[in-house]
Amino acid sequence: MSLLIAVTWETQPWMERFKRHLPGREIAVLGEDFDRNAIRYVATWGPKPGSLSGLPNLEAIFSLGAGVDHLMSYPGLPDVPIVRVSQDDLTHRMSEYMVLHCLMYLRDQRRYDEDQKARRWNPDRSPPIAGDVRVGIMGFGVLGQDSARKLKMMGFDVAGWSRTAKSVERFEVYAGEKGLAPFLNRTDILISLVPLTPETRGILNRSLFEKLARDGKLGGPVLINAGRGKLQVEVDILSCLDDGTLKAATLDVFETEPLPEDSPLWTHPRVTITPHNSAVSEPEATARYIAEQIRRHEAGKPFENLVDRTRGY
Amino acid sequence: MSLLIAVTWETQPWMERFKRHLPGREIAVLGEDFDRNAIRYVATWGPKPGSLSGLPNLEAIFSLGAGVDHLMSYPGLPDVPIVRVSQDDLTHRMSEYMVLHCLMYLRDQRRYDEDQKARRWNPDRSPPIAGDVRVGIMGFGVLGQDSARKLKMMGFDVAGWSRTAKSVERFEVYAGEKGLAPFLNRTDILISLVPLTPETRGILNRSLFEKLARDGKLGGPVLINAGRGKLQVEVDILSCLDDGTLKAATLDVFETEPLPEDSPLWTHPRVTITPHNSAVSEPEATARYIAEQIRRHEAGKPFENLVDRTRGY
Ligand SMILES: NC(=O)c1ccc[n+]([C@@H]2O[C@H](COP(=O)([O-])OP(=O)(O)OC[C@H]3O[C@@H](n4cnc5c(N)ncnc54)[C@H](OP(=O)(O)O)[C@@H]3O)[C@@H](O)[C@H]2O)c1
Ligand SMILES: NC(=O)c1ccc[n+]([C@@H]2O[C@H](COP(=O)([O-])OP(=O)(O)OC[C@H]3O[C@@H](n4cnc5c(N)ncnc54)[C@H](OP(=O)(O)O)[C@@H]3O)[C@@H](O)[C@H]2O)c1
Repeated sequence: MSLLIAVTWETQPWMERFKRHLPGREIAVLGEDFDRNAIRYVATWGPKPGSLSGLPNLEAIFSLGAGVDHLMSYPGLPDVPIVRVSQDDLTHRMSEYMVLHCLMYLRDQRRYDEDQKARRWNPDRSPPIAGDVRVGIMGFGVLGQDSARKLKMMGFDVAGWSRTAKSVERFEVYAGEKGLAPFLNRTDILISLVPLTPETRGILNRSLFEKLARDGKLGGPVLINAGRGKLQVEVDILSCLDDGTLKAATLDVFETEPLPEDSPLWTHPRVTITPHNSAVSEPEATARYIAEQIRRHEAGKPFENLVDRTRGY
Repeated sequence: MSLLIAVTWETQPWMERFKRHLPGREIAVLGEDFDRNAIRYVATWGPKPGSLSGLPNLEAIFSLGAGVDHLMSYPGLPDVPIVRVSQDDLTHRMSEYMVLHCLMYLRDQRRYDEDQKARRWNPDRSPPIAGDVRVGIMGFGVLGQDSARKLKMMGFDVAGWSRTAKSVERFEVYAGEKGLAPFLNRTDILISLVPLTPETRGILNRSLFEKLARDGKLGGPVLINAGRGKLQVEVDILSCLDDGTLKAATLDVFETEPLPEDSPLWTHPRVTITPHNSAVSEPEATARYIAEQIRRHEAGKPFENLVDRTRGY
């Protein structure tokens, strides 16, 4: 059997890791010569249109990231199971990111950066504590729930929002369209970790930001988006920052990536930018995960983290 | 009975909180008129020499901060029990600070700040994970242990160092002078949360920094000091930053506070400065804690968090 690596990234580190975790198997790379009949699995990120066609013995496609929007919009996606990556290494990295950025807002780190630049000694004797700050996590799946647990452990007041109703111990979880307004009304820091689907595209817009809590301890609501760039309407984020509807934003993802050099987001004083790497699919852990899924499948067990094509994630 | 407030801060918020938590009692303020014979308790921070003398009915002194070095060096300190503040609000704030700053180093936030300023899109595809980074906490008491638990929960590899040997579940704790070198040898991020005593004064110096791990994943050892400023030798920190013995430092405390405007620490590119407020004694929680200690004492129970004058903390 063969595994085909079809990525827009450098293939070398992936080849190395897959060879280690699938010893004795053939690993092919898209763009080089290989036998299309031998391919049983594809591990992919951002494949070029057409490149996944004509693989008659394909059994599954592995998305190398947690999101699968890049595949859902792929023309002529082969009709085989799609498995997304979901493993602790990636999950923990995302929680690090969320805890870091929530604490930066709680502790007003940007103010201290400014003070340092101005050589200003200006302690604040009554900063809010984490328990005074309400974090709302849109997308209460694998990533959202791990972030929630860690933010709660740091003392934040955390709630979640998901598509379907669910009960998660120790958390209030709002669901669906009906739950959205009450969820936003109690939220000071809005974390976005929803997948990009037809329902969620553009959801982070002015009308949503206007529903966020206005009586919070941070001086205005804050957005942190690490879901996908096309969830957000960047002109709305900018105008909401400017008229005070939003106090600040931390963005890991953007409508266009890399973020164009002329985007006003780069220089906005209350925007923090990271280059879509809040939680990277590190080759070692990802290859280990995919090898494990292949072994499960070949032992007759079902894949984990199967994508449901009808809901789009 | 009366409680005397003797602080160098604004007294109004303290007066208000003590009145609320000790209803019906008289509260006096140093500097105003009061009956010295009526004073049974003093709540103090940085009292002027002589101001605590001539209180014949004094039963206890409460330090409004977790540290008592300001009292240990106080000339003519009355011979009554000294109780320090140790309560969850302050403890949790300190842990917020430590988790925030460790994550800023783990996630190389300063690099992304620079990239943003330069409009540079530069993701790193193999950043370290928390488990690759060894945090060493000097001073494994109330604050050190709470920070340790939260850092461990975020995935860091955490160990402690204290004066006396102790066993704390799930942590390796090094002790005393003999334990110091092995503790430093395994440390990438050194957190200082020891009290200032004759033994610890100037302990954060070149010879100590040279013992820190040189094979870590952060590109060099990092210092975070929120203990006391006089633990550190600032000329050594600066020269160690410049010759690579230290990679970076986050300092909440300084040899002289406020940090003098001409200190080179303000502008050093790898120094982060906060104005001694990593964990403030917020009036509400602190007054509640002291009122509780007074009630314990008057019910015949011992004070909690009594200071041992011979060891100096
Ligand atoms: N920036 C990065 O580096 C990075 C890295 C990894 C992942 N991500 C993004 O993070 C997303 C989440 O990953 P995950 O592993 O946590 O996925 P997951 O386990 O599938 O969770 C997705 C969550 O979103 C909810 N959801 C989906 N559609 C919704 C809708 N229309 N309305 C309300 N809630 C909706 C789901 O609700 P139900 O629970 O009801 O199904 C679920 O709670 C990925 O899709 C990806 O886009 C980004
Ligand atoms: N920057 C701020 O805003 C701020 C706020 C609050 C507190 N602080 C500082 O934090 C310090 C610690 O507070 P805490 O409540 O955690 O105190 P604590 O519970 O008394 O703990 C002190 C720890 O330091 C250890 N220690 C003392 N002397 C030592 C020595 N010579 N060698 C090695 N270890 C030594 C103790 O060892 P044993 O366990 O063996 O006794 C103990 O583990 C305070 O003293 C204060 O200076 C700063």
